Amino acid sequence: PCACVGFLRVLQFLSTMKDMHYGRYSEDFGEYTKEEAARLRESGQRRSVSQTLKPLENNKGRCAKCRFCTVRCLKFLISRVGEDWIFLILLGLLMALVSWVMDFGINSCLHALMWIYNSLDSYVFLQYLAWVIYPVVLICFSAGFVQILAPPAAGSGIPEMKAILRGVVMKEYLSLKTFVAKIIGLTTALGSGMPLGKEGPFVHLGGLCAAVLMRFMSLFGEIYENESRYIEMLAAACAVGVGSCFAAPIGGVLFSIEITSQFFSVRTYWRGIFAATIGAFIFRVLAVWNTDAETITALLRTSFRLDFPFGLQELPAFGALGIACGFGGALFVYLNGVIVRFIKKQKANNGFLMKKHLLYPALVTLLISTLTFPPGFGQFMAGKLNMMETMEALLDNRTWAKHDIAEEFEHMGHSEAWIHPQVNVFVTLGLFTFMKFWMSALATTMPVPYGSFMPVFVIGAGFGRLVGEGMATWFPDGIPTNGTSYPIVPGGYAAVGAAALSGAVSHSVSTAVIVFEMTGQITHILPIILAVILANIVAQSLSPSLYDSLIKIKKLPFLPELGWGHHEKYDIHVEDMMEREVQYIALNCSYRDLHNVLLTGHHNTVALVESAESMILLGSIELAQLQELLSLQLDRPRRLENIRERAVQDKKRLSVVSNDSSENSSHQASQEVSFQISTEDSSLSPTCPVPQKPLKPALKRPSVVERPTSKKHTHTPPHTREREFLNTRNVEDDMTIREITEWEEKQLDEQVNFNNCKIDPAPFQLVERTSLHKTHTIFSVLGLDHAYVTSIGRLVGVVSVKELHKAIEGSVKVEGAKARPALASFRDKGKSSSKNEATDVHKLRDRLKSMQLPREHTPSE
Amino acid sequence: PCACVGFLRVLQFLSTMKDMHYGRYSEDFGEYTKEEAARLRESGQRRSVSQTLKPLENNKGRCAKCRFCTVRCLKFLISRVGEDWIFLILLGLLMALVSWVMDFGINSCLHALMWIYNSLDSYVFLQYLAWVIYPVVLICFSAGFVQILAPPAAGSGIPEMKAILRGVVMKEYLSLKTFVAKIIGLTTALGSGMPLGKEGPFVHLGGLCAAVLMRFMSLFGEIYENESRYIEMLAAACAVGVGSCFAAPIGGVLFSIEITSQFFSVRTYWRGIFAATIGAFIFRVLAVWNTDAETITALLRTSFRLDFPFGLQELPAFGALGIACGFGGALFVYLNGVIVRFIKKQKANNGFLMKKHLLYPALVTLLISTLTFPPGFGQFMAGKLNMMETMEALLDNRTWAKHDIAEEFEHMGHSEAWIHPQVNVFVTLGLFTFMKFWMSALATTMPVPYGSFMPVFVIGAGFGRLVGEGMATWFPDGIPTNGTSYPIVPGGYAAVGAAALSGAVSHSVSTAVIVFEMTGQITHILPIILAVILANIVAQSLSPSLYDSLIKIKKLPFLPELGWGHHEKYDIHVEDMMEREVQYIALNCSYRDLHNVLLTGHHNTVALVESAESMILLGSIELAQLQELLSLQLDRPRRLENIRERAVQDKKRLSVVSNDSSENSSHQASQEVSFQISTEDSSLSPTCPVPQKPLKPALKRPSVVERPTSKKHTHTPPHTREREFLNTRNVEDDMTIREITEWEEKQLDEQVNFNNCKIDPAPFQLVERTSLHKTHTIFSVLGLDHAYVTSIGRLVGVVSVKELHKAIEGSVKVEGAKARPALASFRDKGKSSSKNEATDVHKLRDRLKSMQLPREHTPSE
Repeated sequence: PCACVGFLRVLQFLSTMKDMHYGRYSEDFGEYTKEEAARLRESGQRRSVSQTLKPLENNKGRCAKCRFCTVRCLKFLISRVGEDWIFLILLGLLMALVSWVMDFGINSCLHALMWIYNSLDSYVFLQYLAWVIYPVVLICFSAGFVQILAPPAAGSGIPEMKAILRGVVMKEYLSLKTFVAKIIGLTTALGSGMPLGKEGPFVHLGGLCAAVLMRFMSLFGEIYENESRYIEMLAAACAVGVGSCFAAPIGGVLFSIEITSQFFSVRTYWRGIFAATIGAFIFRVLAVWNTDAETITALLRTSFRLDFPFGLQELPAFGALGIACGFGGALFVYLNGVIVRFIKKQKANNGFLMKKHLLYPALVTLLISTLTFPPGFGQFMAGKLNMMETMEALLDNRTWAKHDIAEEFEHMGHSEAWIHPQVNVFVTLGLFTFMKFWMSALATTMPVPYGSFMPVFVIGAGFGRLVGEGMATWFPDGIPTNGTSYPIVPGGYAAVGAAALSGAVSHSVSTAVIVFEMTGQITHILPIILAVILANIVAQSLSPSLYDSLIKIKKLPFLPELGWGHHEKYDIHVEDMMEREVQYIALNCSYRDLHNVLLTGHHNTVALVESAESMILLGSIELAQLQELLSLQLDRPRRLENIRERAVQDKKRLSVVSNDSSENSSHQASQEVSFQISTEDSSLSPTCPVPQKPLKPALKRPSVVERPTSKKHTHTPPHTREREFLNTRNVEDDMTIREITEWEEKQLDEQVNFNNCKIDPAPFQLVERTSLHKTHTIFSVLGLDHAYVTSIGRLVGVVSVKELHKAIEGSVKVEGAKARPALASFRDKGKSSSKNEATDVHKLRDRLKSMQLPREHTPSE
Repeated sequence: PCACVGFLRVLQFLSTMKDMHYGRYSEDFGEYTKEEAARLRESGQRRSVSQTLKPLENNKGRCAKCRFCTVRCLKFLISRVGEDWIFLILLGLLMALVSWVMDFGINSCLHALMWIYNSLDSYVFLQYLAWVIYPVVLICFSAGFVQILAPPAAGSGIPEMKAILRGVVMKEYLSLKTFVAKIIGLTTALGSGMPLGKEGPFVHLGGLCAAVLMRFMSLFGEIYENESRYIEMLAAACAVGVGSCFAAPIGGVLFSIEITSQFFSVRTYWRGIFAATIGAFIFRVLAVWNTDAETITALLRTSFRLDFPFGLQELPAFGALGIACGFGGALFVYLNGVIVRFIKKQKANNGFLMKKHLLYPALVTLLISTLTFPPGFGQFMAGKLNMMETMEALLDNRTWAKHDIAEEFEHMGHSEAWIHPQVNVFVTLGLFTFMKFWMSALATTMPVPYGSFMPVFVIGAGFGRLVGEGMATWFPDGIPTNGTSYPIVPGGYAAVGAAALSGAVSHSVSTAVIVFEMTGQITHILPIILAVILANIVAQSLSPSLYDSLIKIKKLPFLPELGWGHHEKYDIHVEDMMEREVQYIALNCSYRDLHNVLLTGHHNTVALVESAESMILLGSIELAQLQELLSLQLDRPRRLENIRERAVQDKKRLSVVSNDSSENSSHQASQEVSFQISTEDSSLSPTCPVPQKPLKPALKRPSVVERPTSKKHTHTPPHTREREFLNTRNVEDDMTIREITEWEEKQLDEQVNFNNCKIDPAPFQLVERTSLHKTHTIFSVLGLDHAYVTSIGRLVGVVSVKELHKAIEGSVKVEGAKARPALASFRDKGKSSSKNEATDVHKLRDRLKSMQLPREHTPSE
């Protein structure tokens, strides 16, 4: 308790000092008094807490005191530190635990296989069976488990996270079920020893973990109410995922930013660094506690020379390695895309392979594990080693090509696997690179949770090592510089190759930082960055990134990035690409117009204009809202009410008054009707064909059974259903189909009443002269789906992601507009040609005059 | 030539492959044919180039062939690679050269001082004079030079760059003059040996270099026409500055992003990395060529232990060091702010110190150099060493506290300066830290170009070393872990302290990355990040960053960042903070209204609404435009024309026709008048009091001399001036003051004609329910100054940076609005309470009806 109190004092002093300091900057003294008041209020609360806790204290003595102090400290911490940071700490802790437990599980699986394999030492056939069946079983379990529990858990999840961070709602990708399925599926899949990684799924797992944690924390308070804050937290969570997977906080943050966002805030970056550091820290501390490591060091610690890491003359070799990796990366993406497309076609045609869910992964696993069987072909490609062992071996400080002359390498460790008595080390490395290349491309199409980063990383390291060993053989004594010469370090080439190839596949340059953090050495910084940049330039000009390729194949909403350079291609404006045929509804439109719009609408909102003549944009309405309006107008209850009213009038004429109470209640209900559509539902089914339903009265039987299906898409509030029930009980639907049609036709001609309709009063607006560059920025920052184009209040067009997509891919013709002033103002909205606008203003004025003449408001001219 | 042709072939193959690959993704075949056409066109151009170059080839043979090939390659490169990348490469090269040349100059200055000092070995007084006068002369030269050539070059420039990147136009900060003044001023200032750094000015120099280079490159083509692209390039240039200053590309990029932006795009990040890598690479290659270094290594290479860099038990010490550095950083910012404010007050009061420009820097330099005089007080604080030598010594791998027992340290190098025969090493380090702390805070207020990063970095390293030596003395054999124990490395503590203190002062976490890159070792990654995060948490909760503090003192436009956590404070919406008294002009307003708006306007634009009743927002007009409209209406030429017309009519009545030709020409001119205001001018003087001028006819003498002063703020196109001249020559201004007043009053009552006025047709709009969080995001991403708040097309308020500022600093009262649904949709615009909007729609409809009734457009109801 003493320490706690002391800590409290320090924090209070801290806050006082803050006030003092801020006092110098603040303009009015009011703030200070307000804070003072808040502090007094807080201390009052604290006193009340202590009062309520007093009896407890008396009862249980010292232990209760401790607990009380803990509660007080926690409350104080939350109020001072802020829930965000507690959330991030929890997230880092949780992800580190998940990562560590998963690593433990994966290693157990791998060790079990090696144990079985080694204990069957003398029976090669049994060894082969074990080597093959074990992974097949694990992969099939993983595929089946994921398929049954949560199919969204399959795959890497990065494309989906990218879409989610762009604002697309995909609830099923962030559910608890998916979380569990992903963890178990990933552990078993990686435990099989297939060339799969854990990085991609960890980006997804980070997001999942954050979503689950947020739902958990929202039980205690309503903090995570803001969607943009939610997105920020998800972005930070992706960083935590990568950070705690590789124990690389900075690289993780940068990598996750590069692959998931186009724009990000420094705030997110800080949050990511904070949480990822905690994740990486705990992850490595767990390893120390488990005595896997002596202290906190890098995951794949290398010990390259510090004083002369590489010669300047080696740089061309590093550059060439980078360019080759760029081509290799593009090829990998292409190969992977071809296989995924093939599988998709097979699935669509219900081909042989897809008839049974598990047949395809089983066959792939069988093929790969047969080829890596150590006594068989695997002896030429170090098939015995798992991924981490392979990486450790490839980053080895020694030169394998010199092995024949140096017998002092007694304990080669994992490197032994590479040195075959009959075959050259170049052949082993070449075979390894080639075989792993197509194996990885093939394995990362299985319906299990997988990552492609690590396999690609290993292939790159293998290729780099190959080049490095080649260099070491070519210059056995190193390249002389200023008289002295240092031998070449092939391990450095392996690091460069790994960074370059993974950078080329994922289109990111921060793989360089991941390599530094994984190896714990930054000596090769310049060659690594150089190679990564070259690889990126080549790969980006040849193909999309692996994730973008998957996004395209999966047809997720996607906004391409503006390419490198070549911006003369992008010198177009909104007016060149906008769609001029905008769907709109006027304030004074009829329900029939609504119906027409609903039938043809292809965005999920419709523009609301003042009138078809003025076209002044007032706002936008979601299609679901219109649908609701229309169904409310043509509703069965309303029709029944109509009948009932007629009946009541008939009855009144007959002077018979019956069931008074029920009428009252139903009347009341119809007055207070106010539909509340939950946005989640409506955004999931924006253009569902429900509005057609009320127009087909022939299909509408007066049964209660059919109602739920027609109401499937629109959420029915309970009191409506109740009213419906009352009505059905009391009034009989005795209208004929013909009468219903007539009634509906009449209803459709009525003017729409927008009173209870939710209107977005400021949909995003652009002007005709907004440049593509700026439009792209705004769309990617705000995660827009479409924006209206206005000209002095008048709606003239609409731009959606589709149009932007077309414009970026260059299919929109550029028309003139080249002679704009250099370094024009950032807000080039005001720069539109005065001629156009002058006429526009003219028109508006004319309109205004014609409107105001009757009211005699025209000023003297 | 052969190599060139081969290279061309490879690139062509590359582009073919790209087409092939993209063909798989593109939807229509049209693209391919278009690209094919483009290629044909290009090859046609190339052919024409070769045809024009043929004669040359015949004349000069082989040499001309080479040149031709180079030209061809360059053209091809530009068309393929894009000008952006060539620009970035040039930028990197230039900055590396600047950095290297400057380092050379600084080192020469420092060596010259040491040479003088050493050669006067036996005359202490002469030594003192040299030690003191030399820096005073250099600093005075620097201050004077900068003062004369370009005053904006003084200071660090980071606050200004931050403002420029937020969209504020400050041309004088990006001029060639400033570039030259900054380079020369900085070289001399740093050459004086004062505790000043080169990092801050290098951020500014990067921006300057980019601006100058852009102006140079725009001579060849009109590429840099887009302001947002310009801003992106500037952001990348800042990264290059830091990168080529410390040879730390990644850290430089991250640091420059953190200190200058709140939002940034991955595109900018890539550009920054690319250019900064080139800068850092060339910078280090130059060092190798100059044989300063053997190969490319880190600037401050360390050689800490790789296998066991630190024990887990040391982490609390690192954490405590981080927290202490946080307090220290806040104190430094506070101290610096106090001194700057004092100087500012002195300047305002024209106090003694400020009477002569050079007195203050001379006095400060005198004080500091006296205290560091090595035979004097300087012997207790290693005064002999310059900044880089100090850093090298502080990162030393050995433990100084053990010096008394280990005599094997023969060649201590720079570390010798720290070990005083009489005084303990703790005293030296403590004195160094304390003295340098206030010296740096004082030195970074002189009117010379300076950076505060390096001094703070060195102070942090000193403090860290102090803690490290303390730990090494406390645990002389290291802290035992699992039986074995490794000695403590005080150099590691120095690295941690440097990163933590500089992080605390600049409020950035990427100083950690800078430390890794500068030292070439990443072994201490976890303690460094941990300490930096802790230091940031403490410093950010106590004070603004050094740059933000300077921004506040300099009163630059500035948007504070949303704080850490505590977002319950930010749960307010636009409606809580907006200003409801919006200045607007209606379409049918008179010039008098315009005049009133101009007199009271405090934003630089005014809202244009349809009419005062409807308040439908049509756009916004710049005040300068209104001013122009008004002055055009009350213009002297127009008045003279009026007189002339009257005169002509008089003459006509008298049937005398004279000077026909001049009338025609002037008439023509008046018809084609169309004012083009350059935005730069208008943005610099948004609310200048010119509009009052035309209303004071008494001041308006009919002389040509006065005209230029009244036209100072508004750019006069030549033909207007010509017309004016014609008029003055032909018609005599014979109106009395009274007549002029009358005429002006009459003119003011006319309705405004907006035809030739530039209207921004889509000013940025928010709605009442937009959250503070989102508003902040939009303002910082788009660099807005203010945004209008609309409700279904109606203007209801305005939010400017000022209001946002107030809201973030917590002086706006939060009203209700706590019970919003968790995880609401990102676009919470549509979420406003339906009640409000229903009434709004209602009003609009009523208005519409009243307008449309006379036109009989009302539909059946």
